[in-house]
Amino acid sequence: MSSNGKEPTRTDQEKLKEFEPVFYPKTIAIVGASRNEQKMGSTYLNGLLAGGFEGKLFPVNPKTEEIVGVKAFPSVSSIPDPVDYVIITVPRDLVLDVLEDCAQKKVKVVQIFTAGFSETGEEEGKKLEEGIIKKAEKGKFRVIGPNCIGVFSPKNNMTFYGAGEPGFVAFISQSGGHVAKIILDGMTRELQFSKIVSFGNGCDLDDTDFLEYLAIDPETNIIGLYLEGTKDGKKLFQLIKETSKIKPVVVWKGGRTDTGAKAAASHTGSLAGSYTVWNDAVKQAGAVNVESFEELVDTLLAFQFLSKIENNNVALIGGFADGAGGASVAGSDACASAGLNLSPFSKEIDEKLNNLIPLEGSITVNPLDLSRLEGNLDVLSRIIGLIDSDPRTDIILINEDIDIISFFLSPSMPGRITDLLIESKKVCKKPMVVVSPPALLHDERAKEESKLSDAKIPVYPSIDRAAKSIMNVITYWRNGSQNL
Amino acid sequence: MSSNGKEPTRTDQEKLKEFEPVFYPKTIAIVGASRNEQKMGSTYLNGLLAGGFEGKLFPVNPKTEEIVGVKAFPSVSSIPDPVDYVIITVPRDLVLDVLEDCAQKKVKVVQIFTAGFSETGEEEGKKLEEGIIKKAEKGKFRVIGPNCIGVFSPKNNMTFYGAGEPGFVAFISQSGGHVAKIILDGMTRELQFSKIVSFGNGCDLDDTDFLEYLAIDPETNIIGLYLEGTKDGKKLFQLIKETSKIKPVVVWKGGRTDTGAKAAASHTGSLAGSYTVWNDAVKQAGAVNVESFEELVDTLLAFQFLSKIENNNVALIGGFADGAGGASVAGSDACASAGLNLSPFSKEIDEKLNNLIPLEGSITVNPLDLSRLEGNLDVLSRIIGLIDSDPRTDIILINEDIDIISFFLSPSMPGRITDLLIESKKVCKKPMVVVSPPALLHDERAKEESKLSDAKIPVYPSIDRAAKSIMNVITYWRNGSQNL
Repeated sequence: MSSNGKEPTRTDQEKLKEFEPVFYPKTIAIVGASRNEQKMGSTYLNGLLAGGFEGKLFPVNPKTEEIVGVKAFPSVSSIPDPVDYVIITVPRDLVLDVLEDCAQKKVKVVQIFTAGFSETGEEEGKKLEEGIIKKAEKGKFRVIGPNCIGVFSPKNNMTFYGAGEPGFVAFISQSGGHVAKIILDGMTRELQFSKIVSFGNGCDLDDTDFLEYLAIDPETNIIGLYLEGTKDGKKLFQLIKETSKIKPVVVWKGGRTDTGAKAAASHTGSLAGSYTVWNDAVKQAGAVNVESFEELVDTLLAFQFLSKIENNNVALIGGFADGAGGASVAGSDACASAGLNLSPFSKEIDEKLNNLIPLEGSITVNPLDLSRLEGNLDVLSRIIGLIDSDPRTDIILINEDIDIISFFLSPSMPGRITDLLIESKKVCKKPMVVVSPPALLHDERAKEESKLSDAKIPVYPSIDRAAKSIMNVITYWRNGSQNL
Repeated sequence: MSSNGKEPTRTDQEKLKEFEPVFYPKTIAIVGASRNEQKMGSTYLNGLLAGGFEGKLFPVNPKTEEIVGVKAFPSVSSIPDPVDYVIITVPRDLVLDVLEDCAQKKVKVVQIFTAGFSETGEEEGKKLEEGIIKKAEKGKFRVIGPNCIGVFSPKNNMTFYGAGEPGFVAFISQSGGHVAKIILDGMTRELQFSKIVSFGNGCDLDDTDFLEYLAIDPETNIIGLYLEGTKDGKKLFQLIKETSKIKPVVVWKGGRTDTGAKAAASHTGSLAGSYTVWNDAVKQAGAVNVESFEELVDTLLAFQFLSKIENNNVALIGGFADGAGGASVAGSDACASAGLNLSPFSKEIDEKLNNLIPLEGSITVNPLDLSRLEGNLDVLSRIIGLIDSDPRTDIILINEDIDIISFFLSPSMPGRITDLLIESKKVCKKPMVVVSPPALLHDERAKEESKLSDAKIPVYPSIDRAAKSIMNVITYWRNGSQNL
């Protein structure tokens, strides 16, 4: 996938092999780990240990012989074993010396956490970053960073204190904070990752390098990107276009407003450019553009759990307890605003539904308001089955509220509805999505969310967010069919 | 505030007195309470008992002599005490007979939970609802509903199982579900209510009656409205305009899309009309228009906790732990998109900040990225003090993340930051708002949210939602100054 056609096209196998030490190193040295637990080097060491990294770890610190029971070395070159990967956390002015040491040891990849380089906008920082590039070229190792949190590779147990079960979503980010946050959010919402990279200033390996790799990575089916800018827009968008043909790419741009762009310039030194141009380019490349952290996670979750959907007919099932009419109206507005269609049920299904649901206070059209169902789960199960069989429905959207169901029906009812949805999901042909807003019963809500997510049913905290995420998935597949 | 000028203008005192039996009844009869706990009448009885209603409660049911230890009566007219308020939950076809009974007893207010009237669109339902109006006129009592959950009056302990501490926010809603949900959300986020009304079909007392009352109610400082339509748009908007001059009015319209409007027609029989016209009318009346349940609650919360703000210069303080740069960029985008201004600090403050914050990895402009502060709360406290003293700042927005702070600093740090913010709030002149996204440590997050809310600092789950709510408050006060 070379963009200029000058370099020889590497085969996928070569490319995958080239990135093996990045995502599957067998040995990692951490320069700057210390007995002081507050130091970032110690956070890396403790995080990798707690995450269950199975290769060898080598703390590097000339002032100590052992850290948390792991033998320390005075330098990278003094480590007797081969070293695949080095994490550098020492102060800026020591970084070039450590790189010299890495070159001597013939390490393959160096990740630089240390900040204070080109992103400061100052001459000294820029000059030091040029020094990093020169050392890397001479030492024949690749660099991730500086000013980054680096690589998380859950299958290799290369994480900070774990990152949930491995999955098939990859995330490439210019920001380390978003990486930490997406891992934690992922653990809450069961968004599961193949690979995560925060590349910071990207002085060597950057957005396009990682995208090129993840496009062919057999463990990655969905790619999220957070960028504040890019060095080579033409190359990036060409790559996004090619990748989008194979797997969904979701792009969040930091610095889409002038104010945000200024903050981005201070953060990673990125020059943001026009957001309108960016947005159009993302869409033309067949990728999905999102505008907040929440929308990014929501959309990745939708891609993770939902199959290919090209049609936008949603059946909205709401209520299960008294007073759900308002939620039906709000749900209809949210769906319609996002571009989803609450199509009427087919005549046959409509008649069958009318026989199942008592009239007073219920609404048998779409959206279905089941206020008067009063916990009759047998009827609910049959309703879902009927709607699943309706050719006019493409997606089943369930709008529930743990507090209201517990309050009006019984505290055990949310759990019983979850079990029913999980059973229904096993036989339903149509994708199923659940909306469950934050609840006073927050432990109970978290428990039900976890059970539903385990059953591959995505859960959203608001109908607006669910509707938008579903529409993002549909938009991708619709574009996809045109692109392919 | 009569709109047509024909009726004699009642004084505020008369109006307040007229609504006394609506919000402060001393005796309530519940027709349809039974020994079956699943029946709605029993939910009302148990809810009022659990909520600590201090007046007398009379279950009405000819088939039993006592329910949960409370003496029951065969009819309203057989109750020996005077009856101020009656809640009717019996099936539709019995409602008119119960109203006859209420008239005989000379009750003052009747709330009808029962559905199946004009909202069904059927002739029979419409005719029965006309019957309700005739009975009310003849019997000289006021009706709330039918098809409604009715009145919550926390100061009178007239609630379902409590509704949190009484406050000064009122909510008028055509939907009962939104009422139940806002009470539960209010208890989570410490949004505190003076009065809440779900009026359903509003065959007698409706949106304009309640708005007229709440405009002059000394216990209400902020009014939220959820409407799917209105009988008299001219009267409603005239009232909103007059009320907005005295206190903030926040309006959420259900059925703003064609799809939502159809659902609204099935729900409360409302004809929705054009949303663009509605939206313009709300703005011209000097009220705040919101478009989702979340934005409604967020905005009411902002009005509850924030003083009058007319200028939009926000100081955004982010991070406190590593990798907060991305959050600063996202925060800047969110603020700018909402219409807030991240103004540069004044030169004097900027210099002082530069002396306080170490350069590497931190950003001393606005937004402030305190990644490298590493839990130095003394410095944080001085930073907040400096920013509070800056004439270029109108609002202090704190962007924190419980998970990341706990992870990178220490599990006790979120609690210590909360304590610091509460102390700072006591001396700060500028309003303070906190963003704390949903966390893996959700119990911890809920605890900190509760402490901050108790200290009158509003907490939002995302920067987008915080920024939008702040801007809604500013927009109201800006309009207000023009209107007054």
